[in-house]
Amino acid sequence: MKDTMEAYFDRLWPISRSLTGNGNRETIEILKELIDLKVTEVPSGTKCFDWKVPPEWNIKEAWIKNSKGEKIVDFAVTNLHILGYSVPFQGTLTYTELKEHLYTLPDQPELIPYLCSYYKERWGFCLSHNQFLELDQDDTYEVFIDSSLDSGGSMTIAEAVIKGTSEKEILISTYICHPSMANNELSGPLVSAFIYKKLKEQKDLKYTYRFVFVPETIGAIYILSKYGDYWKKNLHAGFILTCVGDPGNFTYKKSRRGDSISDRAALTILNQSEGDFNLVEFFPNGSDERQYCSPGFNLPMGSLMRTMYAVYPEYHTSADNKDFISFEAMEGTVNKYLEIIELIERNENYINTMPYGEPQLGKRGLYPTFTQTGNDDHIRAMMWILNLADGAHDLIAMSERSKYPIKKLLPIIDKLIENGILKNEAS
Amino acid sequence: MKDTMEAYFDRLWPISRSLTGNGNRETIEILKELIDLKVTEVPSGTKCFDWKVPPEWNIKEAWIKNSKGEKIVDFAVTNLHILGYSVPFQGTLTYTELKEHLYTLPDQPELIPYLCSYYKERWGFCLSHNQFLELDQDDTYEVFIDSSLDSGGSMTIAEAVIKGTSEKEILISTYICHPSMANNELSGPLVSAFIYKKLKEQKDLKYTYRFVFVPETIGAIYILSKYGDYWKKNLHAGFILTCVGDPGNFTYKKSRRGDSISDRAALTILNQSEGDFNLVEFFPNGSDERQYCSPGFNLPMGSLMRTMYAVYPEYHTSADNKDFISFEAMEGTVNKYLEIIELIERNENYINTMPYGEPQLGKRGLYPTFTQTGNDDHIRAMMWILNLADGAHDLIAMSERSKYPIKKLLPIIDKLIENGILKNEAS
Amino acid sequence: MKDTMEAYFDRLWPISRSLTGNGNRETIEILKELIDLKVTEVPSGTKCFDWKVPPEWNIKEAWIKNSKGEKIVDFAVTNLHILGYSVPFQGTLTYTELKEHLYTLPDQPELIPYLCSYYKERWGFCLSHNQFLELDQDDTYEVFIDSSLDSGGSMTIAEAVIKGTSEKEILISTYICHPSMANNELSGPLVSAFIYKKLKEQKDLKYTYRFVFVPETIGAIYILSKYGDYWKKNLHAGFILTCVGDPGNFTYKKSRRGDSISDRAALTILNQSEGDFNLVEFFPNGSDERQYCSPGFNLPMGSLMRTMYAVYPEYHTSADNKDFISFEAMEGTVNKYLEIIELIERNENYINTMPYGEPQLGKRGLYPTFTQTGNDDHIRAMMWILNLADGAHDLIAMSERSKYPIKKLLPIIDKLIENGILKNEAS
Repeated sequence: MKDTMEAYFDRLWPISRSLTGNGNRETIEILKELIDLKVTEVPSGTKCFDWKVPPEWNIKEAWIKNSKGEKIVDFAVTNLHILGYSVPFQGTLTYTELKEHLYTLPDQPELIPYLCSYYKERWGFCLSHNQFLELDQDDTYEVFIDSSLDSGGSMTIAEAVIKGTSEKEILISTYICHPSMANNELSGPLVSAFIYKKLKEQKDLKYTYRFVFVPETIGAIYILSKYGDYWKKNLHAGFILTCVGDPGNFTYKKSRRGDSISDRAALTILNQSEGDFNLVEFFPNGSDERQYCSPGFNLPMGSLMRTMYAVYPEYHTSADNKDFISFEAMEGTVNKYLEIIELIERNENYINTMPYGEPQLGKRGLYPTFTQTGNDDHIRAMMWILNLADGAHDLIAMSERSKYPIKKLLPIIDKLIENGILKNEAS
Repeated sequence: MKDTMEAYFDRLWPISRSLTGNGNRETIEILKELIDLKVTEVPSGTKCFDWKVPPEWNIKEAWIKNSKGEKIVDFAVTNLHILGYSVPFQGTLTYTELKEHLYTLPDQPELIPYLCSYYKERWGFCLSHNQFLELDQDDTYEVFIDSSLDSGGSMTIAEAVIKGTSEKEILISTYICHPSMANNELSGPLVSAFIYKKLKEQKDLKYTYRFVFVPETIGAIYILSKYGDYWKKNLHAGFILTCVGDPGNFTYKKSRRGDSISDRAALTILNQSEGDFNLVEFFPNGSDERQYCSPGFNLPMGSLMRTMYAVYPEYHTSADNKDFISFEAMEGTVNKYLEIIELIERNENYINTMPYGEPQLGKRGLYPTFTQTGNDDHIRAMMWILNLADGAHDLIAMSERSKYPIKKLLPIIDKLIENGILKNEAS
Repeated sequence: MKDTMEAYFDRLWPISRSLTGNGNRETIEILKELIDLKVTEVPSGTKCFDWKVPPEWNIKEAWIKNSKGEKIVDFAVTNLHILGYSVPFQGTLTYTELKEHLYTLPDQPELIPYLCSYYKERWGFCLSHNQFLELDQDDTYEVFIDSSLDSGGSMTIAEAVIKGTSEKEILISTYICHPSMANNELSGPLVSAFIYKKLKEQKDLKYTYRFVFVPETIGAIYILSKYGDYWKKNLHAGFILTCVGDPGNFTYKKSRRGDSISDRAALTILNQSEGDFNLVEFFPNGSDERQYCSPGFNLPMGSLMRTMYAVYPEYHTSADNKDFISFEAMEGTVNKYLEIIELIERNENYINTMPYGEPQLGKRGLYPTFTQTGNDDHIRAMMWILNLADGAHDLIAMSERSKYPIKKLLPIIDKLIENGILKNEAS
């Protein structure tokens, strides 16, 4: 999986993505090779709650030349050089005039910042602070930005659905609005696409899985204007996929509810896995949980990440690049999500069909025929399952109370179901 | 404020207060200069629940002379010398006879105890143990007590009310039955009166404030017989003011409920103030919380004190005097109560008027127009407010969950209300 | 008490008990001298839930002789030598053939294991591993087992009831199916019988006490098929008595509910007694809590033990004998159960008849007539009782919140009832 991931990463990396524009369309076209995405073009100006879809932004060329005609800053070198959503501009400026349009990181002088100005018209360039300091203050500079802002354009979003037997949905939401950024963001769409591929291979899924690929914030707000009311009734669990590509420990940020099935399943899996992880209580900054977990929706959306946004110094700089991530870690993230999903699929209130005293397990070959030897771990776990299969404990609660991991309980549950001693909730 | 306080303290100090009597009337007359008190005379013999208002007690003169005619113990020197509610007496006694009527503190031999016998007829004198030891055991003593117990008298209580827009009340209860005692008790009526003065200056109070000045126990029982049923429905919060004058750390004793709005507001303010404080769980001894928090009423009455009654050695002795207290500390107590009251006034479930996704703060000038810079503290606090303004979190709960102090939240709340993004619960 | 206990122990010890059979009848006949047991014979084949009562097993003689005609293993020496429920057998076997029927404890080579095969037909002998190693591998062995399995027989159970004023029951359940085992099991029936004797002497019991003496597992399942539905409504508390004879610290294993009155009463008494104890959360292995606390019944059955089954090395071996137990400890267990029962009898929601403010205790002689001296421990406990006697706190909750032990509270409660200030819940 990781080699395929790397190949896709390399193709997606140079594309200039933003809230809108052809870069987003191109990105989705490539991802379609992995995941059966249905594309929607949402017209600029479309109202969603308190917001409007912005004009479509495209950019072909952007540079600064010194008086010798040398391109000293060029969008063609890295798309980070342009302030996102820069308006078109052409002109010659003094150093003092130009300076007002240059953005740098004085504390990280070797890195180029990633910056945008979506809702206020501006133009600007981002560059390393070291380069900025070398600019000749007596020179004049030619600036050219061949961009367009089209209020007759659209915002491109994409969805894919895997139908399960239930209409209850599990939502995987990721975003496609950052240009050449590796952990935040290309890891998100890539891991989401591979989760799709793996789930698609599975039979008899209980839940319906919806994958959405949207620009951050406005895309999530749009998708909520479309599905929000439906999800309030039908969203069983869900996750925002961002910052899932670096080799750091897992981080789980809880949903606003704090005890949603997403939270309980993710934390059960993490607690029962090797390795440390970070647990982060919900806070209303960050990524699209700002929208999904807004008080009007309060959806059960958590986020399993590697190293969380804003806490690593490479975040939103040119250093969030291929060197910062690991395709092995990304494959690990895919697998961890699949484990969580498997648990959500299996998690239910199993029912003991013989709840009055113990069933006679011995006559079914499930218990030793010598007394006083029924004390081993397997038998103990079986006794716990039967004892807690009362309709008030789901699988996760069984695991918590019995202290047996899910992996130990599931095969015994299957054997008990086979023997008619346990049944599924719904049956 | 503190100089005025001191002037009033000096006038009130020498007055002989008790459950009833002219000393109480005189005290209230002086306090009327600060607070618009309405006086009620409750006739002796009035039944309130299991109790009866006792006969009115007054005292003019009381002394012990030795055989040389020297006044060795004299009520005129300090009113602590007389056992409260002593019956009239005149006679000459041997040392052995007199001894039965003398009360001292062997463990604090320099101090005079403060002692009463309200409901059993007795007479007695209180003096320092050192003085007691010096009494000539072979001498005879003349005793004179010019007191009166009038079953046709009355108990004097006083109330003041500041009307708010709501009928829901906040109760400030303090007592006026101790003679020359500084921390316990003159600090209570003085701090209460100055809270009144400050609140009276405020406009648009939401709650109605009731101040009651009553003798301890019987006074509180009487006032409950009058307002208890009303308060069960309409008392929003309240505090018993006692021991609020010494320079020690604050102590907060919870109401019986433990999570009343009084408790939550007081503890929020104390937790968000500099300085340590003591938290004391409710217990059914102490002051008038014994009555207000009796199981039939269970009112939300807490008590913010300085050093709590019964835990300081000067308590109920002649050492609880002006030296023990600090008018600066008393002013600090007034201000702390005003802070708590301000929080109770402002505490409500604010409602986000745009709860579906985030409101677009940028177009209202409430959010930076560059992305990726919305991470500062002010913005984070604003996001928390919007996220929790769901009708299920009051201001205190917002502060607890967001970990932002009330002081940080309130100006942002005001700005959001101004912008129509937030509204008050009631509106 | 302990000498009588020892005498009964010595008579009961050699009897061969099992799920069924004459040994069980004989055991109950002896116990009848202590407790008024009513015997029921449950026919073999009787269906109870998923189980059937097994055929009746009796055994007269069982031995192994070597080729010299020496009895090397003999049931007459200790009844542990025979595998419980061994089918009849007669024959001569080689060492290799015999070995398949021999059971030992290689890790405890000096001890004979206690083992049964109730539901699969087998025969076998138990012996020390040391003896097993000395067997001549070239010898031949004569085996004789004079046992019978009678499907026309019955299972013998016994019950005794002490009627209280309420139909609500407290259940004491113990088992009588182990042959010569001291802590697990003779301590159980003996302690149960002595609790009965002591309770029988008491007057005015509130609850009805039911004592059941049944074989483990199948006996409990049978008794649940008889009373289970009734107990779901009417069982107030109950305990399984097993492993109550060794001199170790007490162990309390909670009921499945975890906060049943059985649990709360037992833990209150243990917490307020001198000496450490072990608290064990419910788990669905062990003794007859497996049945009583099965999810269909979920009865409030806890278990106060000394050293718990399966955690001491002597468990289910020939070392669980008279040396391992202490009749003084058994008497201590009887007394601890009686303390718990007394608490359950007294535990109720006492009601303050004067809940509005404090009752005037002084006029009833319950409070000092001097003020400011009502601060002693006795008064404080009284104030707590009055404050919490609101119908929402039972005696145990009063003790928990006030931190006063039950022993301190009860005499004060009695005095307050006498004075008409407190009343019983029901009255």
